[in-house]
Amino acid sequence: MTRVAYLGPPGTFGELAALQYDSSADLMPFPSHAAVAAAVESGMADVGIVAIENLINGSVQETLDILIHETDLKIQAELVVPVRHNLVAKPGTRPADVRVIYSHPQALGQCRKFLERCFPRAQAEAALSTTEAVELALKREGDAAAIATERAAELLGAEVLARDIQDSENNVTRFLVLGRGTPPPTGRDRTSIAFTFAEDRPGALASVMNAFAEANINCNKIESRPTKATFGDYVFLIDFEGHQDDPAVKAVLDRIRPLCAELKVFGSYPRAI
Amino acid sequence: MTRVAYLGPPGTFGELAALQYDSSADLMPFPSHAAVAAAVESGMADVGIVAIENLINGSVQETLDILIHETDLKIQAELVVPVRHNLVAKPGTRPADVRVIYSHPQALGQCRKFLERCFPRAQAEAALSTTEAVELALKREGDAAAIATERAAELLGAEVLARDIQDSENNVTRFLVLGRGTPPPTGRDRTSIAFTFAEDRPGALASVMNAFAEANINCNKIESRPTKATFGDYVFLIDFEGHQDDPAVKAVLDRIRPLCAELKVFGSYPRAI
Repeated sequence: MTRVAYLGPPGTFGELAALQYDSSADLMPFPSHAAVAAAVESGMADVGIVAIENLINGSVQETLDILIHETDLKIQAELVVPVRHNLVAKPGTRPADVRVIYSHPQALGQCRKFLERCFPRAQAEAALSTTEAVELALKREGDAAAIATERAAELLGAEVLARDIQDSENNVTRFLVLGRGTPPPTGRDRTSIAFTFAEDRPGALASVMNAFAEANINCNKIESRPTKATFGDYVFLIDFEGHQDDPAVKAVLDRIRPLCAELKVFGSYPRAI
Repeated sequence: MTRVAYLGPPGTFGELAALQYDSSADLMPFPSHAAVAAAVESGMADVGIVAIENLINGSVQETLDILIHETDLKIQAELVVPVRHNLVAKPGTRPADVRVIYSHPQALGQCRKFLERCFPRAQAEAALSTTEAVELALKREGDAAAIATERAAELLGAEVLARDIQDSENNVTRFLVLGRGTPPPTGRDRTSIAFTFAEDRPGALASVMNAFAEANINCNKIESRPTKATFGDYVFLIDFEGHQDDPAVKAVLDRIRPLCAELKVFGSYPRAI
């Protein structure tokens, strides 16, 4: 049975991603993305699931920092998980009695329109996770609700008062599966890399982008991330189509390596979409 | 007296940024970055201060979305505010009695090492802002503390138990001042733009980067941000050195405009560093 580390607690979107990856796995919740990576590195788990990007909220900086600075694990796969929020409460709670609504600040933000329309006088309260929000709501006497996954409601014995309350119907979170080694090419792969330049000069990034353009390789995503040393020095992150074992990708990586101060390949893996 | 809208409540880093911009201004707290922009657009405030980037946590997606989709306000200036966290509590609280520590999840994350070392058995609890964290701690009977700014402690009558408890000594947040019109060139300016391409083809971004490289204009930051429509279509954001009234910048903007489906200039403003 595959041992899958994920960012817990159970009932959060991290567990939904882990179940989507392997519903029969031995699921192991950890308290941070850094702990998920450490669990795989140390052999406690076979793979670890980390969130990398949300359509509304953008990149998950903690995961980018782990990939850039902290781990040599490679990306094995990507997972795209729809973000569906629900209003859940102690069984028997009447919506009209709800005065306090708990959730993680990001989930509260993703349901702002619903809350303004349907619960204009309820007070929003922060929780460390959507699952903790359900626990906090269940401790109160019928005047509280939480924004959480349906699974969190099931696990904790809460009732779903309203379904699919997120403002955006097509919000998704992209997760990465981290593990050892690189999966073989499938013909529909993506490769993720990071690189830095020795000096911040006009044209450095253009020369890298040109190498991809001339090889006819499509870059799906590009991002600069401040290095922690000084504000203004940047690590560049690119996702592009293809596998590092494809001859065209090998050639472009060989071409850009001398242009960079550092180049790290996070992995090549089948595209989810 | 300049009316300055900011993301409140008072005592948070948004107010520190507003005070750094103009300590004698009429400061107006608002509950979201979108509300700050709306306050300026509607004439309630003269300028609005929004967070755009944190060295540890990366870009503030809500602000990027406002600049991309929601406002025609222009960037007037940038501010760089050091992130200094303090452990604060009801006066007379003894550190040994602290069982619960409140803060915004981001602030809790930025002080993780300090908390693990000095308060390994205290429970972290989420708050919607660092100022709310102080209010929550003050409600309890001497067994709670909050991570917050020194100013929040002053405003609410709390005592500072420990100063500068953030893990990273050089963490800063960059804020933008939004208002009407574009400030004149100073010779040390930055310009921020966003653009999209009609189709996702290899080389589109390279052609834009080349235009900057050939004009010898240094790009400080580049980021792709998923458009809300479909996962995988991206808006590109670039910060570069120079002012949109500089002839070289005018020429490069004229050259890239036909390459883009849409091009929006967020503003040209003096660089803070």
